[in-house]
Amino acid sequence: MSGPETGERQRSFMDLALEEAEKAASRGEVPVGAVVVLGDRVLARNGNRTLELNDPTAHAEVLVLRAACAELGSQRLPDCDLYVTLEPCAMCAGAISFARIRRLYYGAGDEKGGAVDHGTRFFRQPTCHHAPDVYSGIGETRAVALLKTFFQAKR
Amino acid sequence: MSGPETGERQRSFMDLALEEAEKAASRGEVPVGAVVVLGDRVLARNGNRTLELNDPTAHAEVLVLRAACAELGSQRLPDCDLYVTLEPCAMCAGAISFARIRRLYYGAGDEKGGAVDHGTRFFRQPTCHHAPDVYSGIGETRAVALLKTFFQAKR
Repeated sequence: MSGPETGERQRSFMDLALEEAEKAASRGEVPVGAVVVLGDRVLARNGNRTLELNDPTAHAEVLVLRAACAELGSQRLPDCDLYVTLEPCAMCAGAISFARIRRLYYGAGDEKGGAVDHGTRFFRQPTCHHAPDVYSGIGETRAVALLKTFFQAKR
Repeated sequence: MSGPETGERQRSFMDLALEEAEKAASRGEVPVGAVVVLGDRVLARNGNRTLELNDPTAHAEVLVLRAACAELGSQRLPDCDLYVTLEPCAMCAGAISFARIRRLYYGAGDEKGGAVDHGTRFFRQPTCHHAPDVYSGIGETRAVALLKTFFQAKR
């Protein structure tokens, strides 16, 4: 993709998300990272921690949404953008919608578990009451490489 | 519904979930309550706390799944059953699937936001990799009455 919404600024925020994905891999977690941004301010950054926290909901997206909400003292983030290295799953798509995220930037598509442009395509459903603008493909190559390396090493 | 899976025992666990829904209403939260059970042991019980915690993911189901996982020191609950007063949304259905919940008992259906028997019907999708057995309708009348009273008072 190109255009003003996916320029240098967006790539630099996705780079932070990719760093979080790398750190997740080094902890033995599925390498996905996410960042919540308000204007030029990074409100939260984190990677998957489901194993570390014994928490099946501790996907990168859920962790940064919760942290950003705590930071702003609000359960809604209508002026915030979310950057995540992998297409969000059904759980995370639901959380993104409830948090009223403005724009979602994701790296790699996820045919197997994604719920934005695959699977239930949640944001396009009548039971979804807020959908962010979605931009995909930024940082995709690096995000895919991280996941491939991780799952190859697991086998 | 009837049968061995929805007998006295199941109704008494749903009563606990309904108590949690009532407590949620008294806190000004949308009245939904949930309980996680392992055998005869209640591992976790809670109601919605999205306002109190400034956390859009703090639905009753997510809170009890996280608490039960913490209690067992595991991110998976394959021998556990979840009781919830309202049909889970897309986010909670995803969390239930990741937690590998064995049986889901819910009270009232939710045409507007449900994702089990309405909306995306997540558990029936190929991108859902674990589906619980689902039993609906237990405690439905009380669950619906609580929600109606709550939303009427809001208007």
